[in-house]
Amino acid sequence: MVNYTEFRVRYAETDQMGIVHHATYPIYFEMGRTELFRQIGLPYTELESKGIIMPLSSLTVKYIAPAKYDDLLVIETAIAEFTPLKTVIVNRIVTKEKKLLTTGETTLISVDAKTRRPVRLPKDIFDLVKNRI
Amino acid sequence: MVNYTEFRVRYAETDQMGIVHHATYPIYFEMGRTELFRQIGLPYTELESKGIIMPLSSLTVKYIAPAKYDDLLVIETAIAEFTPLKTVIVNRIVTKEKKLLTTGETTLISVDAKTRRPVRLPKDIFDLVKNRI
Amino acid sequence: MVNYTEFRVRYAETDQMGIVHHATYPIYFEMGRTELFRQIGLPYTELESKGIIMPLSSLTVKYIAPAKYDDLLVIETAIAEFTPLKTVIVNRIVTKEKKLLTTGETTLISVDAKTRRPVRLPKDIFDLVKNRI
Amino acid sequence: MVNYTEFRVRYAETDQMGIVHHATYPIYFEMGRTELFRQIGLPYTELESKGIIMPLSSLTVKYIAPAKYDDLLVIETAIAEFTPLKTVIVNRIVTKEKKLLTTGETTLISVDAKTRRPVRLPKDIFDLVKNRI
Repeated sequence: MVNYTEFRVRYAETDQMGIVHHATYPIYFEMGRTELFRQIGLPYTELESKGIIMPLSSLTVKYIAPAKYDDLLVIETAIAEFTPLKTVIVNRIVTKEKKLLTTGETTLISVDAKTRRPVRLPKDIFDLVKNRI
Repeated sequence: MVNYTEFRVRYAETDQMGIVHHATYPIYFEMGRTELFRQIGLPYTELESKGIIMPLSSLTVKYIAPAKYDDLLVIETAIAEFTPLKTVIVNRIVTKEKKLLTTGETTLISVDAKTRRPVRLPKDIFDLVKNRI
Repeated sequence: MVNYTEFRVRYAETDQMGIVHHATYPIYFEMGRTELFRQIGLPYTELESKGIIMPLSSLTVKYIAPAKYDDLLVIETAIAEFTPLKTVIVNRIVTKEKKLLTTGETTLISVDAKTRRPVRLPKDIFDLVKNRI
Repeated sequence: MVNYTEFRVRYAETDQMGIVHHATYPIYFEMGRTELFRQIGLPYTELESKGIIMPLSSLTVKYIAPAKYDDLLVIETAIAEFTPLKTVIVNRIVTKEKKLLTTGETTLISVDAKTRRPVRLPKDIFDLVKNRI
């Protein structure tokens, strides 16, 4: 399952080079994850309401070509690896003409919101996601 | 009491006009408030640990001259009005040569972190601040 | 003419109060302006390509109720005042159920991108906007 | 040569997990690079004034432990690899008690600001940096 979400680059996301600042891409990736989880049927808000948060343990971004203000882009998001403790997400950002601008890989850890310690995803949640991806 | 805090403009804070993006200034103001409350002797972290949060009810910014990447600036912060329910903060951002770049006014409401309803500041906290400003 | 643009709150836009950070709203307002100018028929990218930039001279935000992560909101944008030198924009952010969360007013100055001095909008551009709003 | 720069976490940098949002770290790394280049004797503003910009080609972040609002941290920055076309920077973010929170690696490409094509750093600039690191 791949989620495709269209979005426009905001003016505030540019820097004085006239391109999207590099720290903006993790925010786009996060937007893609939100939409992927919604498509799977498990909105991330629901996960948090069950007391599970998913902070990052690592992030990699490859900047291939710059995005610019007002560009209409598509972020592609998929789950590359999924265990009860760890989720690896891959992203691609492309123009409407399918030109590849950026790729990314994000590793998320399942954490108990109260204890702030790693926790295995409850079986029903794990199965729901596992069966959809 | 006025707090003077020095800081440098970050690259990420610029936009494609080559100046600091206008939405960055409220973040500078917030940094100034943090330092003012520390100077008063009531770190904002302590306030939150007592179950009080201080969201904004209004914000005004006047942009007089632009700041640029790597500028070394000073943010001046003072309390203009202080009641158990409402705090009005005023800010000025100036260059090292005292050129005025920006002014701001921020109104904060005292809110109970649990109920999310306005709450009067506890008397000891209110008096502590009142006696210092 | 009023522009209505729908958008979703991003996770990165929240702060530790669990609500959208107050410095995010000017970015939403800017997104609304971009869409209003597109609706008028004068994309802001086109304006900049003609050597005109529109930095802010002032900003006011009223925070009425907080927005939260993943909220689906609508930003309403209209021009309240328009002269060759100055444009005043008003914004309202509402939920899908029309609950008002935030209002804003932004004043923009027309500036020559090279000289960085205020400049009157060229007559054709001024008339184009004037006739549409 | 290693640059050590102290900074405080801003409130706006937190998210609703109550920790620094992951997209903030590349901005801290950039702040570290700015200070490293100043320490070397080649402020990044000077590089840009010579018509050279240094966009990223890749970024990796490892999130080991979370930073929180008002934490006083140190960012360590060093050049791991340096050629006329490519600069690899490594970062570590640590608490005042030397607890490691985050590591990062950033690859920058030397680009001509006008043509937007990769360009070799001028020999005097390259030698200046090479002799200092």
